[in-house]
Amino acid sequence: MSDKLSPLAPAQTPVLPEIGGVTCRVARARYKDWNRCDLTFVELAAGTAVAGVLTSSKCPSPEVEWCREALRGGTARGLVVNAGNANAFTGARGKEAVQLILSLASERLGCTENEIFVSSTGVIGVPLPTDKAKAGLKTAFEAPACGWEEAAATIMTTDTFPKMATASAVVGGTTVHLSGIVKGSGMIAPDMATMLGYIFTDAAVNAAFLQKMLSVATASSFNCITVDSDTSTSDTVLAFATGQSSAPALASFEDNGADAFQAALSDLCLQLSHLVVRDGEGASKFIEIAVTGADSDDSAKRIALSIANSPLVKTAIAGEDANWGRVVMAVGKAGEPADRDRLTIGFGGVTVARDGLVVPDYDEAPVSEHLKGSEIDIAVDIGLGSGKAKVWTCDLTHGYIDINADYRS
Amino acid sequence: MSDKLSPLAPAQTPVLPEIGGVTCRVARARYKDWNRCDLTFVELAAGTAVAGVLTSSKCPSPEVEWCREALRGGTARGLVVNAGNANAFTGARGKEAVQLILSLASERLGCTENEIFVSSTGVIGVPLPTDKAKAGLKTAFEAPACGWEEAAATIMTTDTFPKMATASAVVGGTTVHLSGIVKGSGMIAPDMATMLGYIFTDAAVNAAFLQKMLSVATASSFNCITVDSDTSTSDTVLAFATGQSSAPALASFEDNGADAFQAALSDLCLQLSHLVVRDGEGASKFIEIAVTGADSDDSAKRIALSIANSPLVKTAIAGEDANWGRVVMAVGKAGEPADRDRLTIGFGGVTVARDGLVVPDYDEAPVSEHLKGSEIDIAVDIGLGSGKAKVWTCDLTHGYIDINADYRS
Repeated sequence: MSDKLSPLAPAQTPVLPEIGGVTCRVARARYKDWNRCDLTFVELAAGTAVAGVLTSSKCPSPEVEWCREALRGGTARGLVVNAGNANAFTGARGKEAVQLILSLASERLGCTENEIFVSSTGVIGVPLPTDKAKAGLKTAFEAPACGWEEAAATIMTTDTFPKMATASAVVGGTTVHLSGIVKGSGMIAPDMATMLGYIFTDAAVNAAFLQKMLSVATASSFNCITVDSDTSTSDTVLAFATGQSSAPALASFEDNGADAFQAALSDLCLQLSHLVVRDGEGASKFIEIAVTGADSDDSAKRIALSIANSPLVKTAIAGEDANWGRVVMAVGKAGEPADRDRLTIGFGGVTVARDGLVVPDYDEAPVSEHLKGSEIDIAVDIGLGSGKAKVWTCDLTHGYIDINADYRS
Repeated sequence: MSDKLSPLAPAQTPVLPEIGGVTCRVARARYKDWNRCDLTFVELAAGTAVAGVLTSSKCPSPEVEWCREALRGGTARGLVVNAGNANAFTGARGKEAVQLILSLASERLGCTENEIFVSSTGVIGVPLPTDKAKAGLKTAFEAPACGWEEAAATIMTTDTFPKMATASAVVGGTTVHLSGIVKGSGMIAPDMATMLGYIFTDAAVNAAFLQKMLSVATASSFNCITVDSDTSTSDTVLAFATGQSSAPALASFEDNGADAFQAALSDLCLQLSHLVVRDGEGASKFIEIAVTGADSDDSAKRIALSIANSPLVKTAIAGEDANWGRVVMAVGKAGEPADRDRLTIGFGGVTVARDGLVVPDYDEAPVSEHLKGSEIDIAVDIGLGSGKAKVWTCDLTHGYIDINADYRS
């Protein structure tokens, strides 16, 4: 955890509703030499459906490999999250640590191992110490139930604030609730920025349908954010539906309330993903990039991410410079259909360049004022079709270099 | 031009041989408010063959579009390079400026317009002022011939040193010479880093074959370097073969000396491309990344570029940290075939991680010593096949942020 709160942290922490069938407990496993809780154990009621979206990294952690395997079963009874040690790139010993956790947790909950989900985040290359995991887990088993904020704080590594959000939907006349926690994108040397997110709902949702809805929700939220274009070996988002509300079960978009639930889930994912950007390493500006008029939505997203990942664009924003030339450059390098002479680029709602030319005498005052703020909007119209996408990122500052370079192993 | 010489600049400037049929002249067009030459005019003997590799940007400058068109003819009589104004994103007026230059230069040289090649680099979004271009060009026409160093300095923007290299080959018993100049990757606000490279040889080479050899040479040189992953709208490499030596003409790899010429051309491109990295914005370390054991050479190159473009890897090197975990992350995110448990990673010739595990008790002293130096080697073996590639980059430092963010428009 950093001592310094991100300047983009929300002013207020939301109050999350309890979710029937979800009990969080935390403990000190002391994976690092720190005096804070770093192991989260979540007990889920029998019959909980689970869905997940995991890192696309070709070198994932054993936890990710396990979750991918366990997701096939579609049911969950427990979740264990370790903070301080990512257990990635640790070979057979890393797998043994996961196995130990599965064994202990499934025994405790009287379930099968493939109903237990595990994540780890922190230092990599060091196998998760099984003695600490075992002692921590046993302590957590006996710990009193804790609230969301404590759980959100326990999964943190170098995050500067706990990240939580909530949403609700009416399904068959009954309000169902969703509560979510997320961590990232901090860094513990020699760690990498990992994003872990967990969503809990008392709705009853068929696992396959939950997976479909989660995939839809993450495509326009967690998969539309970038801090530094680097993808962790451990990125994980899991959604658990306990079915403890009295609302009727959802199994397809034909079902009454399914659209409302999808909207709530998408909203929750969007809120959580934005919190990650707001805690981006060294971030001083939260940037929304909206691309319209592209050949397709996919094309728009690739162009938007090309802009969001461009170090030249990100440093320009850090410098409060409406540098539309760098935006053109990033559009051009995306490799997607684009025509220089049809591009329109705006900052903060003011069109700066249109049809391949800077707008003569555009009003610079509101643009400069906008760039001095902490919430930056960049709008790009490609002028070719109706494809559109929004992505979110932060600026690239000296703070990023401080965090990631000013370290000696 | 920056006042501060890159710490990675070569200690000595090479002396380049004159190339028969090539005459360089420079002039002050004053595209910016500076007192230096910024317009280069190169006259080429009749019968000069030309080949080129241009930016893959979908939003190229009109100069790039023109060069692409003119390359179809395969012959060149003149080259004009403007520094200080990129003439990119300038619509019809930008095209008019190119047209004016074509008209003036072709008239001067008594050739067709499609034998004139043009590049511009510098501020974007401002049409190249035709009055300055015209006056500058007319001055250059009457200027005395200048040497390579003056030409190399005249094409610079924020480069901290002029970049030149030479190579030679024996073709049919006669030595042919190659001299090359390049500029990049500096930045003039609100400009973008543009790489322009020009290679001149007195060999006689069929244009189509020159194109083939240049494509081979750039694939493993200019296309294997990265400073910040951003691609300019103006990147250009042109090769001119005047045929003024007495060596027999080359038209295919069957020809005696063709292999030697390809080797010399590839060597020259490699030298020039490394000079660009050595002048990378804020660079304090020159990094070579060698990937072996990949599924294919293409796969190896994509993995190597993923490592080279990773901000986390680049900041780790800036921090002199042998952070192999970030290298694993970058391998994983490349999306290429890779198996975490077969990866081997070394720094400066010392294996740090093998078969998915850190090497216990590896000798840290030589690794730390290596990372304190300014020439860093990272070796990654994927353990799957025989595909290999080398790429070059620099570290990501506070200097990069200073150059690119600490600017107000």
